[in-house]
Amino acid sequence: MVLHFSKCRSVLITGASRGLGLQMVKQLVETTERPEKIIATARNPSAAQELLELSKSHAGIHVVPLDVVSEASIDAASQEVASIVGADGLNCLINNAAINISSDLKTVTRDTMMKTFESNTVAPLFVTKVFLPLLQTAAAKGTGMGVHRAAIINISSILGSVQLNWGEGATFKSYAYRTSKSALNMVTRCLATDLESEGILCMALHPGWVRTDMGGAIAPLSPEESISSVLSVISALTEKHHGEFLDYSGNKLPW
Amino acid sequence: MVLHFSKCRSVLITGASRGLGLQMVKQLVETTERPEKIIATARNPSAAQELLELSKSHAGIHVVPLDVVSEASIDAASQEVASIVGADGLNCLINNAAINISSDLKTVTRDTMMKTFESNTVAPLFVTKVFLPLLQTAAAKGTGMGVHRAAIINISSILGSVQLNWGEGATFKSYAYRTSKSALNMVTRCLATDLESEGILCMALHPGWVRTDMGGAIAPLSPEESISSVLSVISALTEKHHGEFLDYSGNKLPW
Repeated sequence: MVLHFSKCRSVLITGASRGLGLQMVKQLVETTERPEKIIATARNPSAAQELLELSKSHAGIHVVPLDVVSEASIDAASQEVASIVGADGLNCLINNAAINISSDLKTVTRDTMMKTFESNTVAPLFVTKVFLPLLQTAAAKGTGMGVHRAAIINISSILGSVQLNWGEGATFKSYAYRTSKSALNMVTRCLATDLESEGILCMALHPGWVRTDMGGAIAPLSPEESISSVLSVISALTEKHHGEFLDYSGNKLPW
Repeated sequence: MVLHFSKCRSVLITGASRGLGLQMVKQLVETTERPEKIIATARNPSAAQELLELSKSHAGIHVVPLDVVSEASIDAASQEVASIVGADGLNCLINNAAINISSDLKTVTRDTMMKTFESNTVAPLFVTKVFLPLLQTAAAKGTGMGVHRAAIINISSILGSVQLNWGEGATFKSYAYRTSKSALNMVTRCLATDLESEGILCMALHPGWVRTDMGGAIAPLSPEESISSVLSVISALTEKHHGEFLDYSGNKLPW
């Protein structure tokens, strides 16, 4: 796998204590052309044993506490991250933290709808808003579009595609998760429009159905397989992909 | 205008105190082939002067209090509506009530995102869930698909199309309204899948940009023009339109 992260000095990944977020950190530290600063956030770092061990055995991993649904926590994290990245700013923000509570037509509750929307849609928007000055600092120093300059990657899901939620594509039932991800796709598209003139790339990425705590044991992809592909796609993003919805193989998905 | 509502015995419209909801009631009562029972809901009927006067001057308009974000209110309304429609059940539910709070990248707040999602996405889902037994009663008595049998019409917006939120289509900025409507489109598609086997038609409808309190004074369509077209589209729905996203002219919109 060839990753073009050599010119991406800093990347921040939310929800890095386990699952796909943790796997991103693991693979990024092993690449030869790795980002110098890998900022891995977790709601409760003291419980993120594997991430903490990784940060002790590798240079340049910064574990930062961040509860994405708490305004105070986002503000505190942004100050810490500002001092980590310094005058270079932040090159790549990966909004990965998300929840999934089962919610078919019978079991869905208002509370599940609201909580999932808060975590999966509203949180990425406000994390982005608060970290925007750091992305703008990085963007001001570069040209073109991509992780070498400034990029916002929203980890979405094919389950957020309204078009594909039909026939066989509609087998997985979840009102809360599906609506939160289609709304996140809309946030992505709004951000892409608003930040294009500043040279900040924004896109939504479907990592595949993966054997994590969230994806379950019968998912077809291992975290290693998914994230190896995901990082290839992210590292190769250009202005062509701005505002798009891609899967882990780089294929365009319909909204 | 020819409306095929003669076999639609009952229609329920949420948010009927003003704007497009009120206009639907006005036009429905004037058609010769009108639904026998027009149930117009409003959060606060005593303040809905025009609707109340309309209900006094025309037979078969039932004004029912309904605050779509209140579980207790939905439950109370469903009991009242059950006694209005009786053994025939409810043929057509139009989820029209919605809010729009301005929210560009600078002004958007968590609270605006959450409140708008609650009113525009979660409320239509739970109104539908609670009224479902009445729709099922009607569906069990009919064949085919359409307002003669059982239909759920979610009043959405072209602003909820993620695909069209680009270039010129991205001029209107509203993180809260746009995400709530793309999420409503997802709810529509989930409901369409779940209720297809029971013969209940579900679709999302864009009424156009209309000169209402919400649409503002510079909108190109009058409420009369919009709703005349909207009612034509609704009255002509068949199984071909199940799960689709149509505009007021009956054109298919991309998600």
